[in-house]
Amino acid sequence: MRYLSFRNNGKGGWGRVAGDTIVDLTAYAPDLKTALVQGLPAEDATGPRLNRAALHLLPVIPNPGKILCVGHNYESHRVETGRARTDHPSIFTRFADTLLGADDPIMRPGISGDLDYEAELAVVIGRHGRNIPEAEAMAYVAGYACFNDASVRDWQWHTRQFTPGKNFPATAPFGPELVTPDEIPDLSAVEVRATLNGTVMQSATLDHMLFPIPAIIAYISCFTPLAPGDVIATGTPGGVGAKRNPPVWLKPGDQIEVEISGIGRLVSRVMQEG
Amino acid sequence: MRYLSFRNNGKGGWGRVAGDTIVDLTAYAPDLKTALVQGLPAEDATGPRLNRAALHLLPVIPNPGKILCVGHNYESHRVETGRARTDHPSIFTRFADTLLGADDPIMRPGISGDLDYEAELAVVIGRHGRNIPEAEAMAYVAGYACFNDASVRDWQWHTRQFTPGKNFPATAPFGPELVTPDEIPDLSAVEVRATLNGTVMQSATLDHMLFPIPAIIAYISCFTPLAPGDVIATGTPGGVGAKRNPPVWLKPGDQIEVEISGIGRLVSRVMQEG
Repeated sequence: MRYLSFRNNGKGGWGRVAGDTIVDLTAYAPDLKTALVQGLPAEDATGPRLNRAALHLLPVIPNPGKILCVGHNYESHRVETGRARTDHPSIFTRFADTLLGADDPIMRPGISGDLDYEAELAVVIGRHGRNIPEAEAMAYVAGYACFNDASVRDWQWHTRQFTPGKNFPATAPFGPELVTPDEIPDLSAVEVRATLNGTVMQSATLDHMLFPIPAIIAYISCFTPLAPGDVIATGTPGGVGAKRNPPVWLKPGDQIEVEISGIGRLVSRVMQEG
Repeated sequence: MRYLSFRNNGKGGWGRVAGDTIVDLTAYAPDLKTALVQGLPAEDATGPRLNRAALHLLPVIPNPGKILCVGHNYESHRVETGRARTDHPSIFTRFADTLLGADDPIMRPGISGDLDYEAELAVVIGRHGRNIPEAEAMAYVAGYACFNDASVRDWQWHTRQFTPGKNFPATAPFGPELVTPDEIPDLSAVEVRATLNGTVMQSATLDHMLFPIPAIIAYISCFTPLAPGDVIATGTPGGVGAKRNPPVWLKPGDQIEVEISGIGRLVSRVMQEG
């Protein structure tokens, strides 16, 4: 199944994707996160049928309790950033006000031009868990979505802590849809790709992750409890703009696209803040 | 004025401190964060009078939207950790489920014995702001509180990102009271002190901060909007347990106290998780 979150006539809602139609399930739960807490409704649950093209898409989970991101999780990106291998995944966080829907522009901050893309697979958690064993971790996944962990590089590198460069508002497109695991029989062959103005900039299959999804979930759940709607952005392949020569920075008017095979296509325009 | 948050007969509330009595202001706003959003009530606002000793104190803001922490912000701690000087404050984050009230024990995780204390001044934000000029930053401060940024050092040092070691649940005592700025006429002379089982382990006055409070607020508000109830933990002086020889780790039964002159005294017991 595929779900999305939207604003319709000024009100937030969510629903199930049925081609170009959205089955509005907002009467069942006020938002998709709450629906994950309660348990998703039956696959044939019904509601008003909306025309997808008339909706403004929100971040697929607009209000996650926690957003955790993995750094340097593909060998090609680790090498281009000159990082040593580590025994554990590198974890930083985002605030929810950095998230964008598929219909929202990425805002380039007035304070920096060093805005970069990072195509990533986002994992959305479906159950409460702490100290989750790796072997059971996939049972905690509610679904997958495209994520663009767009980064303000000079602010990311002010100190060793990535927080500033990863938390400018309106920098993280997330969606368009939450895709349940049954739709993706073989994750290893899934390809993550970033395309900037029609040129492929990043591409890797998920089997190139240094820490696979179960290892990430197990590790994170050792130090923080996970809950339905929590988001884990699983890292980006090599090919980011900062490591090109000369660097490629996102500019107003650019179109940056994250496409993940079987999961979706997340196309964002870049706009100047203010 | 001084405010605190509490649980009374199983229900959350907040109130104004009047010696050993708490004037319950929960009818005015459901929690202290909401009261900051609405504007605090008049100094003579009244409500039921509660016996402080009968209340269970909560984190002074139990539900902050954002918790930002500054690393290596006292020269003595920068030197002991061997960090280079930086042109910008080092910022990491905590999730709200790491917070503890003054009556709660710090939980030593089952997975690590490398639990350390960090006595800090917490600044609580009182107004919405973005790109706040340094000269106006103090007008955004609702008040101050004691904070113990207790850290699981081996997990903090798994990679360069501090997130794991700073986010174990129930590791950050925060309170007991929110003290409004008018109560502290000269911040520079205020002393932050950690005392472990009666021995002073850390001590510094706030004028030893590398980045003073207005600089921290200005910097953070460049990359993320601040809102009432947001918390900034402003860093810890030298003398942490990890940098002693041999290292001093917190053990079950220890009593660790953060005292800040004019602001309060935050005494926590250490307990073993699970």
